[in-house]
Amino acid sequence: MRQVAILGIGQIKVDEHWDLSLRELGGNAAFAAMQDAGLDKVDALFVGNMLSPIISGQNQLGTFFSDWIGLWGQESVKVEAACASGAAALRAGLMAVSAGDIDSALIVGVEKMTDKAGHDVTAALATAADADYEVEQGISFVGINALIMRRYMHEFGWKHEDFAPFSINAHANAIHNPFARLREKISTEKFEKSSMVATPINLLDASPIGDGAAAAIIVPAEKVASLKGKPKITVTASASATDSIAVHSRKDPLFLSAAYLSSKKAYEMAKVEPKDIDVFELHDAFSIMSALSLEACGFAERGQGVRLAIDNEICPTGLVPICTRGGLKARGHPVGATGMYQIVEVVQQLRGECGPTQVDGTRIGMAQNIGGSGATILTHILQAG
Amino acid sequence: MRQVAILGIGQIKVDEHWDLSLRELGGNAAFAAMQDAGLDKVDALFVGNMLSPIISGQNQLGTFFSDWIGLWGQESVKVEAACASGAAALRAGLMAVSAGDIDSALIVGVEKMTDKAGHDVTAALATAADADYEVEQGISFVGINALIMRRYMHEFGWKHEDFAPFSINAHANAIHNPFARLREKISTEKFEKSSMVATPINLLDASPIGDGAAAAIIVPAEKVASLKGKPKITVTASASATDSIAVHSRKDPLFLSAAYLSSKKAYEMAKVEPKDIDVFELHDAFSIMSALSLEACGFAERGQGVRLAIDNEICPTGLVPICTRGGLKARGHPVGATGMYQIVEVVQQLRGECGPTQVDGTRIGMAQNIGGSGATILTHILQAG
Repeated sequence: MRQVAILGIGQIKVDEHWDLSLRELGGNAAFAAMQDAGLDKVDALFVGNMLSPIISGQNQLGTFFSDWIGLWGQESVKVEAACASGAAALRAGLMAVSAGDIDSALIVGVEKMTDKAGHDVTAALATAADADYEVEQGISFVGINALIMRRYMHEFGWKHEDFAPFSINAHANAIHNPFARLREKISTEKFEKSSMVATPINLLDASPIGDGAAAAIIVPAEKVASLKGKPKITVTASASATDSIAVHSRKDPLFLSAAYLSSKKAYEMAKVEPKDIDVFELHDAFSIMSALSLEACGFAERGQGVRLAIDNEICPTGLVPICTRGGLKARGHPVGATGMYQIVEVVQQLRGECGPTQVDGTRIGMAQNIGGSGATILTHILQAG
Repeated sequence: MRQVAILGIGQIKVDEHWDLSLRELGGNAAFAAMQDAGLDKVDALFVGNMLSPIISGQNQLGTFFSDWIGLWGQESVKVEAACASGAAALRAGLMAVSAGDIDSALIVGVEKMTDKAGHDVTAALATAADADYEVEQGISFVGINALIMRRYMHEFGWKHEDFAPFSINAHANAIHNPFARLREKISTEKFEKSSMVATPINLLDASPIGDGAAAAIIVPAEKVASLKGKPKITVTASASATDSIAVHSRKDPLFLSAAYLSSKKAYEMAKVEPKDIDVFELHDAFSIMSALSLEACGFAERGQGVRLAIDNEICPTGLVPICTRGGLKARGHPVGATGMYQIVEVVQQLRGECGPTQVDGTRIGMAQNIGGSGATILTHILQAG
C-alpha cells in the first residue's frame, strides 16, 4: 500500500452564497487546490456531497464537476455518507492512489444549502437518520441529538452551561479564519441566553448550515520531493467504521462506538497514541458531539469530555486543541463539505499557517468526520515532514 | 496492485416489489451473495444507489445496509454516479481491496423505484442530466436519448425498425432468466406497434424501471485457492471515464467518448482486444445506446452498430453476444443496481450457469455501465480460470 501525500489545498468561505451556483462553489475550491498544488490536471476526481439530489435536483456530481473544472474524460465519482461525505470521498481517493491505479486525485467536498427555505433543509438533513424508524416519528436531526445531550447531562450530572466552553473556543478561533461563517466572540452569558432549537440544544450548541466547498490534491508520497518550501504532509492513517443508523438500536447511545473503532484503527496505522495528536479537528455539529468524540477517541474518560473544555484544554494552547479554525460551530457546517474543510484545516496547522490560533510545533493532526448521529465515522491522521 | 477475484454473487428478481422495503431489497441480494461465497462477514460494504435520497428520503445507504445486514461496526459507504452507480461502487471496493487496506468487500447495487407515481420517477431520473442547462428546459431523460437516436437515424440512414433486433434479442434471452422483469418474446411487428414514449423511442426501445438489487463479494485473488468446483473469476480490468454531463457540450453527440476511453483502458489492463470478448453486457437503457456502445468499444464501425444486430451477431451464438440475460431492456433497469446485475450476469456466463442463453466456451466477459447520456462510463473485464 503506497503512502499518500497532500500536495495542495483550497477552500471558499462558508456563507450564504446566493450569487454562486453549486458548480461555482465546488469549482472555486477545486481551482484553489490545483493552484496551491501547482497542477492543472489530475487523474481522477472524488466528490463528497450529501444533498444535491434533493436541494439542487442534480445527481452524478463527479462528472458534473469534472466537466465544469475541465478534467474532461477523467474518471470521477461522488461518494456519500451523510455529513461524513467529505472524508468518505477522501478515503475513496486515497484507496485509488494507494492501489496504484491512479497517480493523482482531486477531492472536493461541496454543499449548496441555501437555495431552499429552512423547512426543506431540515427535512433534507433528516435523510441522514433512519427514514423508516426515526424520521417517520416526526423527529428532526437536531431532535435526535437533543435526546442524546439530555441523557448525557442526566447520566453524568452536567448542566447546560458546562457546554459553553466548546462554543466559546470555536467562536474565538473562527475570528482568525477568513473562511469561517461566524466570526464573532461569544460569552457564557450569550451562550445561555441563545434561542432554543430543541431542548437542551440551543442556537449556540448547534453548528450553522451554509454553502461551502473545500478541496485537496493527493499524490503518492514517494513522488513528492520538495514542496516549494512547505513541509511534506503525509496521510498516515485513514479508517472508517459504522454503528447502527438509528440511535435507539445502540447498546449505549452515549458512546460513539464508530469513533472508538475508527480512531483505534487510525492510531494503529499511524503508530501513535492520543497523546501524540497535536491538533484534533473533530465533528462538533452539536456541542454534545465534541464531548462524545473526545471520550470515544481516548482523550477523556466517559462523561468527562466536558471537563476538558471547562479546564481550557481544548483551546490552541491546551492539551487537545480542537476546532482551531472555528470547527463546525463557527466555521460553519456545509454538510458534505465539512470533512474536507477539516482536512484542509489540519494541513494549515501542519504548515504553520494559522496565525493567532496556530498550535505551536504541530507535527501530527487528526480529523474526524461524522455521518448521522454517530452512524458513519471516518478518522484521518496527517503528519508533517 | 493486488488482483481481485469475485467469490460470490447474489440477485433478486427485478420487479415491482410492493411488499419489500429498500432495506429488504438490498439485504436479500447481499445475503444471497454471502451465501454463495460461503462467508458471513466481510471487511467493508460498498453500496451503489442513485435515487434513495429523493424516492425513499434515505441517505447514508452504506451504514443503512451494514446495519441491516449485520455487518456491525464495519466500514461502509455509498457511491453514486447516476445509472452507473452499481459499477462505481464495485470500482471503489476494488480499489480498497487492491490497495491492501481491506481483505474482503461486499458490493451491493440497489434501487427502490416503485414507491412513487410515474411522474415523480421521471423527475428523479432527470437528476442524471444537467439540472441547470438540460432539465431546466423541460426535457426528460428519455427525451435527451430520443434526440440522440433521431440524429443517429438521420446521420447514418437507419429506419426505426432497424433497431428491433436489439429489443428482440434482449426479450428472447430474458425468457430464460428467472430474475428478469419482462419474460416475453416480442416480434418486429410488436416492436413497431409499441406505444411512443418520446419520438422515435417507443416502449420497446426503452428499458423498464423496477425495484432490484444485485451483489457480489470480492477478495484478493491470491487468497482464493479453490471455489467449490466453480471456476475462479478474476477482475482483470476496471476503468472509468467521463464526458460532459450535458449532451449539447459534446463535439459529437453520436460518439460515446467515455465508452471509448474506458474500454480502451480496460482492454490495455486486461491485455485483450474486442475480438477476445466472449460476452458483453452493455448498457441498453435505450436501443440507441446499444448501437453507440458497440461502436465506441470497437465492435463496429461508426454508424454500423445496428448492422451487428440486424445480422444476428448480438445473440448468444453471434460474434458479440450482448444482453444474454435480458439486458436492461428485458431484465429491467433498477438504475443504481444495474451495474451490479451486469457483473453478476457476466459471472454467471463465466461459470456456465446460463442454460439456453449460455455462450459456449465463455472465458472473458465485459460489462459496461453508463451514467447519464454517456457522461460517466465504467468498463470491467472479468476472466475465468
